[in-house]
Amino acid sequence: MRSYPAIRSSSLFHHRIFSRFRHTLSPMANSTEDSLRRALSDKQSTIDARGNAIRQLKSSGASKSEIDDAVKALNALKLEKTSIENQLKASTSGDTNGSVMSRDAFRQAVVNTLERRLFYIPSFKIYRGVAGLYDYGPPGCAVKSNVLAFWRQHFVLEEDMLEVDCPCVTPEAVLKASGHVDKFTDLMVKDEKTGNCYRADHLLKDYCEDKPELKHVLAILDDLSAEQIGAKIKEYGIVAPDTKNHLSDPYPFNLMFQTQIGPSGASTGYMRPETAQGIFVNFRDLYYYNGNKLPFAAAQIGQAFRNEISPRQGLLRVREFTLAEIEHFVDPDDKSHPKYIEVSSLEFLMFPRDEQMSGQNAKKLCLGDAVSKGIVNNQTLAYFIGRVYLFLTRLGIDEKRLRFRQHLPNEMAHYAADCWDAEIESSYGWIECVGIADRSAYDLRAHTDKSGVALVAQEKFAEPKEVEKLVITPVKKELGLAFKGNQKMVVEALEAMNEKEAFDMKAALETQGEVQFEVCTLQKTVTIKKNMVSISKEKKKEHQRVFTPSVIEPSFGIGRIIYCLYEHSFYTRPSKGGDEQLNISRSLTAAGISNKKDITGTSIGKRYARTDELGVPFAVTVDSTSSVTIRERDSKDQIRVNVDEVAAVIKEVSEGRCTWADILQKYPAHSSVSADE
Amino acid sequence: MRSYPAIRSSSLFHHRIFSRFRHTLSPMANSTEDSLRRALSDKQSTIDARGNAIRQLKSSGASKSEIDDAVKALNALKLEKTSIENQLKASTSGDTNGSVMSRDAFRQAVVNTLERRLFYIPSFKIYRGVAGLYDYGPPGCAVKSNVLAFWRQHFVLEEDMLEVDCPCVTPEAVLKASGHVDKFTDLMVKDEKTGNCYRADHLLKDYCEDKPELKHVLAILDDLSAEQIGAKIKEYGIVAPDTKNHLSDPYPFNLMFQTQIGPSGASTGYMRPETAQGIFVNFRDLYYYNGNKLPFAAAQIGQAFRNEISPRQGLLRVREFTLAEIEHFVDPDDKSHPKYIEVSSLEFLMFPRDEQMSGQNAKKLCLGDAVSKGIVNNQTLAYFIGRVYLFLTRLGIDEKRLRFRQHLPNEMAHYAADCWDAEIESSYGWIECVGIADRSAYDLRAHTDKSGVALVAQEKFAEPKEVEKLVITPVKKELGLAFKGNQKMVVEALEAMNEKEAFDMKAALETQGEVQFEVCTLQKTVTIKKNMVSISKEKKKEHQRVFTPSVIEPSFGIGRIIYCLYEHSFYTRPSKGGDEQLNISRSLTAAGISNKKDITGTSIGKRYARTDELGVPFAVTVDSTSSVTIRERDSKDQIRVNVDEVAAVIKEVSEGRCTWADILQKYPAHSSVSADE
Repeated sequence: MRSYPAIRSSSLFHHRIFSRFRHTLSPMANSTEDSLRRALSDKQSTIDARGNAIRQLKSSGASKSEIDDAVKALNALKLEKTSIENQLKASTSGDTNGSVMSRDAFRQAVVNTLERRLFYIPSFKIYRGVAGLYDYGPPGCAVKSNVLAFWRQHFVLEEDMLEVDCPCVTPEAVLKASGHVDKFTDLMVKDEKTGNCYRADHLLKDYCEDKPELKHVLAILDDLSAEQIGAKIKEYGIVAPDTKNHLSDPYPFNLMFQTQIGPSGASTGYMRPETAQGIFVNFRDLYYYNGNKLPFAAAQIGQAFRNEISPRQGLLRVREFTLAEIEHFVDPDDKSHPKYIEVSSLEFLMFPRDEQMSGQNAKKLCLGDAVSKGIVNNQTLAYFIGRVYLFLTRLGIDEKRLRFRQHLPNEMAHYAADCWDAEIESSYGWIECVGIADRSAYDLRAHTDKSGVALVAQEKFAEPKEVEKLVITPVKKELGLAFKGNQKMVVEALEAMNEKEAFDMKAALETQGEVQFEVCTLQKTVTIKKNMVSISKEKKKEHQRVFTPSVIEPSFGIGRIIYCLYEHSFYTRPSKGGDEQLNISRSLTAAGISNKKDITGTSIGKRYARTDELGVPFAVTVDSTSSVTIRERDSKDQIRVNVDEVAAVIKEVSEGRCTWADILQKYPAHSSVSADE
Repeated sequence: MRSYPAIRSSSLFHHRIFSRFRHTLSPMANSTEDSLRRALSDKQSTIDARGNAIRQLKSSGASKSEIDDAVKALNALKLEKTSIENQLKASTSGDTNGSVMSRDAFRQAVVNTLERRLFYIPSFKIYRGVAGLYDYGPPGCAVKSNVLAFWRQHFVLEEDMLEVDCPCVTPEAVLKASGHVDKFTDLMVKDEKTGNCYRADHLLKDYCEDKPELKHVLAILDDLSAEQIGAKIKEYGIVAPDTKNHLSDPYPFNLMFQTQIGPSGASTGYMRPETAQGIFVNFRDLYYYNGNKLPFAAAQIGQAFRNEISPRQGLLRVREFTLAEIEHFVDPDDKSHPKYIEVSSLEFLMFPRDEQMSGQNAKKLCLGDAVSKGIVNNQTLAYFIGRVYLFLTRLGIDEKRLRFRQHLPNEMAHYAADCWDAEIESSYGWIECVGIADRSAYDLRAHTDKSGVALVAQEKFAEPKEVEKLVITPVKKELGLAFKGNQKMVVEALEAMNEKEAFDMKAALETQGEVQFEVCTLQKTVTIKKNMVSISKEKKKEHQRVFTPSVIEPSFGIGRIIYCLYEHSFYTRPSKGGDEQLNISRSLTAAGISNKKDITGTSIGKRYARTDELGVPFAVTVDSTSSVTIRERDSKDQIRVNVDEVAAVIKEVSEGRCTWADILQKYPAHSSVSADE
């Protein structure tokens, strides 16, 4: 029977959809840092050694209490290690007051400009708004629409993906199968008097952050249970920030917006928390549409919803957002990719698991090397990592502030083969903007189980194959005598063993005569004796192989990418007067398509300044009925061209078919009074 | 004080968002029809005469009972008229069994092909689906994405509109102000035993449709109150169709999906039923962004939601759909349009109010004539009607099956100046696909009232203007004596009179000494005497004019347009074998961009047949490493071109830069074995 490791469920689901927000290492070092790194490296060695020791204890049949003690000691070591990591984090993140101020000031300048120029508008502002909801205003819409068009071009069209468009309203059965109904939660506490709600981990984090002696709590925050967080809240006397009232115990709050489908009240629905499920439930039709061939990918762009308890971090943590998701279905036995060669020589910042655990920094790696060294699990996963790198950098993300960070074992779902996040550095730290996960067969199996419809693929053999098949034959009579009413569940558990489990049992039964066997459905361990089961291999002829495909899932948070793009494109131009004029630069708006007539009565200089700030790359001033002036924003160069030519010239240069320098050579520079002065 | 006429609220809101589904007249006539038309015309004349008589009664101060009797008689006449209309409708809609069968069969053929080829997929199919929810599969997505791209090009870009993108989750205050919380309802009845829900009007309609003697009920269905529908259900003994149980009385069910924003349970939200409100609440920022100039238009494409009681009509009546909406803000005193001249000579099928009421058919009109004759209210409204006509016909809608139908007075909201629906004929009858409404200042005023933020525009005068201003001075002492605690509300009602109301009162007071005055906030009529108020005009200097802009709103149901496009593009090709092979034709997929490799093992003929059915216009067969065959679907012509040229050739012809005939001239026709045989 399948068993689940003790991963906190919310984190299991959160990592899929960008909920975790990380401050991580920035690439600078000093002497404190060096000594911390050494301490960390030492601690890791000790932990590795202890880990090996425990494995030896287990295999040598040591007593449970002996093993428990060793595990306890190992966990203490791990806590110490996390504390060192945390100090290292604080020392490297530039978290001194000065730089925090300047980061905050920078962010404030960006956000002010974005809101003033209607890139974003807090939604329903005239009704005082709703936390976590934002509109895209006209320039924001143009950017979003360009980013999505480029995404479609770069992924859907170039890779022949099957695009689908599913509703946001989703019935409960689908999200029950996916696990969201039970596990898509955050821990919440309530003000006992007012009923105000808070995220339990946020309150604890805020309390600990100011206190150097509690830094170690921060490091383990994500791994604490509801009970543990509740105990700490009581221990530290944390109260409601707004009222100083006592707080309730933490309890899970489901983050999906719930609603009713139809009028009867009998059919619960949710606003989808991700677009992926709409693709999974259509697997059978899409596979058929693709001529029953693997691999193939399906893609979807659409709104997703998350009812955050108390949204923070402005534009990064919102209650409704646009996701672009790809589900690439592949034979689990062959994860090679025909176009892998096209990305294998790419080099960029990667941050593998081992480097993170040993306190090192992200480093530039060749993608092909990462695969051949086994750092990245397989070619298909690597192919998408490479394609995501190309997508983000071509979009205008600064490659020096982009890294691919591998998930640590405790961040990943138990079924995931490997996960990498594209993280972009912003004023908030390193932000997870794209998640690229090999989710194995988990999602299709879950929907097969719950719907009763087999979401599987077939491989027809050219000629029948002789295969060895595992045959597990429970001896029902003996099992009935031993387990009575529980017999059925023991039988099912025995039959569900995989080959390795079965032959381990066979070996143990032959040497020891009996074996301990965990039956998940009974939630206990039973003793299986030699006469209760026979395990063997038989040869059979098979004409085809039926299997559940693996899913490689690149999942893009479009809003986060756009926000980081703004930060990376934002600079201030010192003006003659000494004050600073804000600008959203070329990399973004070069792709912009809309144009705007400015017929206000203000001076031409003011109008140029206004469009510069908006990031409009070219301003066209009508000089006469036959000629116009084109002014390029960054150089402030002006040329004069014929009215008939203006559209062609701007199209050429903005679509990159020639440079502004080429244009300048062709047309005479126009040096009348500079309106910028 | 503003007063509201007795319009059924659900219809008031429904017509905005495509809820009403009409079967209307089709253009054929016979002798029964002629006599019905004459009867209808006669009845209309009688009604007109009686209406005039009632107006005279009112102005001559006839008694209330006298007027009431006359109104009663008039209403009876109107019912008779509607009954005639209904018979006419039945006789002209071709509603004989034969043609109904063939319409149904045609629709079934279309829908089968669309589902089989994954243009649409019933959502969450493996979990038995949800009524009223559909996915767009890969070819459907390509079509939708092309339609939206063309919409953006045709409206947003060519008209310099300000595009916004607002969330679907909307707080209650916004939809309270818009009226949706109170009025966006359908009447529902419940099975008293099982709790199953039905739309009250649907049950009544189904019952009456089979019974010629009840045809007159159908005609007035939309105007019946909850009580009246309930009475008819009782009278006819209508029971629950599934169980034959008794039904509850009808009661209003709100069609919005309700949810909670945040975890407290204190903040109700809804999934937006239209995208328009997101634009209205942003009016102030958008007006500023546009340099404080009118007119301007804002646009939004996005999901809208409606929790239908029991969705029927497949792809036309769904619970989640894509809307594309434009809100054009214009000075109410100047609704001219600078580009009106570009559409004023267009001619197409229009169906003005008078033609509908006198039982005539839609007829071809010149748009400019319709404006100059006062049929269409203003230039801006006409401009958008013309642009919508161009949009739909360029998209591929058959212009012979497209008409613009003007709303009848009882279909329009009381504040609307004029409304026209673009209706497309399909197997369901004439379908409302685009609504084009002059909504006057209603929406901005509603949000100004509720939010306290003035959503207004200013017109600065070149030099101060001397204006006559209405001055209403209630004499508080006299009013206090007369109305005591109600004084304040009477004062407010007096001050809220518009100029006409005030001068009518002044005149009445001067001739009669007192006047009856309705105070809405008191819900009663009071007597105002001459000494209680003074009304005059004063001259003032004004520097600017502050006013609430009017809104012209073209609102597009994208899914409905696409469905009608499929029906108009669908034809069957008789094959040699005599059976019919289905096709989605050129008009749709010529704009298609995706291409698909077909490497299945079936014969080339079968593969051509498959792509023909999908509507793929060109099939490329690789003959050798250097040359390929391009086959054009409709002609089945094949040409042979060089591998290097294939992309350019297909791009040229599919983007319309040259025709297939041009291509045939340039490249030798390739007459090897025809794979189609």
